Amino acid sequence: MVLARRAFTVVQDEHLQHLTGRTLAAETVAAVRSVIGERTPVALHEPSFRGREWQYLKECLDSGWVSTAGEQIKAFEKSLLEITGARHAIAVVNGTAALHLSLVAAGVGRDDEVIVPALTFVATANAVAYCGAIPHFADSEERTLGLAPQALRQYLRDTTQSGPGGTRNRATGRRIRAMVPMHTFGHPADLDGLRDVAEEFGLVLIEDAAEALGSRYQGRHVGRHGLLSTLSFNGNKIVTTGGGGAILCNDDGVAKRVRHLGTTARLARGWSFDHDEIGYNYRMPNLNAALGRAQLEKLPEFIAAKRALAQRYAHAFSAVRGIKFVREPAGTESIYWLNAVLLEPEFAAQRDAILETTNRLGIETRPVWTLMHRLAAFRDCPRMELPVAESIEARLINLPSSAFLASAHA
Amino acid sequence: MVLARRAFTVVQDEHLQHLTGRTLAAETVAAVRSVIGERTPVALHEPSFRGREWQYLKECLDSGWVSTAGEQIKAFEKSLLEITGARHAIAVVNGTAALHLSLVAAGVGRDDEVIVPALTFVATANAVAYCGAIPHFADSEERTLGLAPQALRQYLRDTTQSGPGGTRNRATGRRIRAMVPMHTFGHPADLDGLRDVAEEFGLVLIEDAAEALGSRYQGRHVGRHGLLSTLSFNGNKIVTTGGGGAILCNDDGVAKRVRHLGTTARLARGWSFDHDEIGYNYRMPNLNAALGRAQLEKLPEFIAAKRALAQRYAHAFSAVRGIKFVREPAGTESIYWLNAVLLEPEFAAQRDAILETTNRLGIETRPVWTLMHRLAAFRDCPRMELPVAESIEARLINLPSSAFLASAHA
Repeated sequence: MVLARRAFTVVQDEHLQHLTGRTLAAETVAAVRSVIGERTPVALHEPSFRGREWQYLKECLDSGWVSTAGEQIKAFEKSLLEITGARHAIAVVNGTAALHLSLVAAGVGRDDEVIVPALTFVATANAVAYCGAIPHFADSEERTLGLAPQALRQYLRDTTQSGPGGTRNRATGRRIRAMVPMHTFGHPADLDGLRDVAEEFGLVLIEDAAEALGSRYQGRHVGRHGLLSTLSFNGNKIVTTGGGGAILCNDDGVAKRVRHLGTTARLARGWSFDHDEIGYNYRMPNLNAALGRAQLEKLPEFIAAKRALAQRYAHAFSAVRGIKFVREPAGTESIYWLNAVLLEPEFAAQRDAILETTNRLGIETRPVWTLMHRLAAFRDCPRMELPVAESIEARLINLPSSAFLASAHA
Repeated sequence: MVLARRAFTVVQDEHLQHLTGRTLAAETVAAVRSVIGERTPVALHEPSFRGREWQYLKECLDSGWVSTAGEQIKAFEKSLLEITGARHAIAVVNGTAALHLSLVAAGVGRDDEVIVPALTFVATANAVAYCGAIPHFADSEERTLGLAPQALRQYLRDTTQSGPGGTRNRATGRRIRAMVPMHTFGHPADLDGLRDVAEEFGLVLIEDAAEALGSRYQGRHVGRHGLLSTLSFNGNKIVTTGGGGAILCNDDGVAKRVRHLGTTARLARGWSFDHDEIGYNYRMPNLNAALGRAQLEKLPEFIAAKRALAQRYAHAFSAVRGIKFVREPAGTESIYWLNAVLLEPEFAAQRDAILETTNRLGIETRPVWTLMHRLAAFRDCPRMELPVAESIEARLINLPSSAFLASAHA
């Protein structure tokens, strides 16, 4: 009898949960449709080519310069300077290459450790591994979805030792060389707080701004706190070059080294070439820069559209109990690269039902990336406790976010 | 008096040398002009876009798919299969990425050694270094400008030890894991000979065919002897995608792994993604593949033109005493990516005078790459004696080689 009653209770709970799940999923679908209309399928993020893309591509082809030098690259890099306020911008083949090159230029080497959020796209951790270095995973805060400065400071105070050779992880004996916060979905991380931590422990700060071209922190474009920062122009980003990325830098010497390293460390001497260190073939082709140049001209439009779309999502979800729309952190202006909602903790179990229902109906939604410390390649890397990242992972859902969706329901 | 006489002799020698230099330089200029006409400046290699480049780029843009997936990539890879006869072709961001990915897929890891020609472009050695491995430089033969199998076999017999763990360098104790011959200027290396050496010592053979798309060895396209082989579509190659490369492979399992590694080792599971090892963001964007697809359609034309140009250079230089035009090795058909001449040893001192005169007159010529063991990054790497590579380095000059030059003087 007792067993039977328990079995019945379980069934009832599952039934209830199933119903709640269906309800939340239905409410999510309704909220999304109220924003972007009925049209399906709708992707998570699609580019839009309604500017001078064709004109610049044609110019590029007619010039005969399609490869890793040319006027389109110069114009593209110049636009990046104007948009970001950075002193130097170096266009490269993709965001991963931008991260890798930044880490090398920052002096990250074999057997160093680098602080990286557990909640990020795999490129951040991979780029550290390319240096022969080890990612060391840190927790995030729900307010920004980025690295949590207070928790990180306490953790580093508890577990590291500082000396003339820098900060060492007491458990592994390895030097911790740099910190790479990532501006998740375009929302700037707590840059002032993180810079303080970086300074206390002598870490080089590199901003992974792959998702945040156009986002502002206290009125200024992101990428100004780090020695270096990186952008991505992959096909799913606010602006695309097909595949591409860039490094922003305000230090003349470091920028020069980045450009040198990314061009196979080549030294031209008359008709002859030398290479004075191990370099990389990372420069963006002129062809891709031509596309990107036209895209950058549309950036203000894209940002306005994406911010308007986010406003509408925020409004639509304000009426849905148990689901919270993720807003830009105070003091920042986010491009809302990917819109996101967070389930209240008591509804976390409904995440998969919502993902399943929306995707089945042709509305592409996605959970956040699998946290880095769960991936086979990084399972044994050092890390702090990650309660906030793990909670966000269990509750976050990304929504369709293409700029053109802002006018889909006008 | 003795001192004065000696000084006089030296001056006389220099004077003579200067005169000979001027003569050889003048004869070189005359020979080159007899082939390509009087028009200057003329570059070492320029692309030509007279096919369907526009059409495919427009199709790509109109489809909305510009990034690392799409129909242009599929069509481009299919064309590569048809041209090369390989079973698998994987398009990537550039030739360096193709080499790196091939080495990783071949199992080259930290502290392995890899046999690489000293006479190559720096990418071959850099890609080895990216794996945390060490390039081990080997000599070339004048007949092919590629790795010399006989000398290499003898050297490996003398300096290595074979056992169940593979072949070890007795001096360093490190495993020698692979061998990467490069087909210099499009001329196929002695692939049968090199395969025998690779088999004797249990080395994975990877062909660096960056310069040899379209070249044939005993009737078949190069790239069929190695487990993997690599191509480049940089702006200076016979066919360009802006920046790009590809990996050819005949093993289904290895090809699958290459594709997986090059796509951030991503595993899609419904709406969720996992990454099961350290991967790379190396896939070629659809935009670049669109350009390449049109270029590949013109490859037969480009090859015919370049071979005709080489014939004319061969004829023109047959009359120049002291200079030998570099011809394709017996049993091969070379695309003559870059045409080259070799000074006879007694005229080697005239190389710089010839380079200076031609470049001053707007005819771009170049010495061969600085040998790898002279570069700061690789100075301390293991190597065999390199007499042939050093002799070639002292005597080789590359000549303007664009396909369209074949019709410049028609």
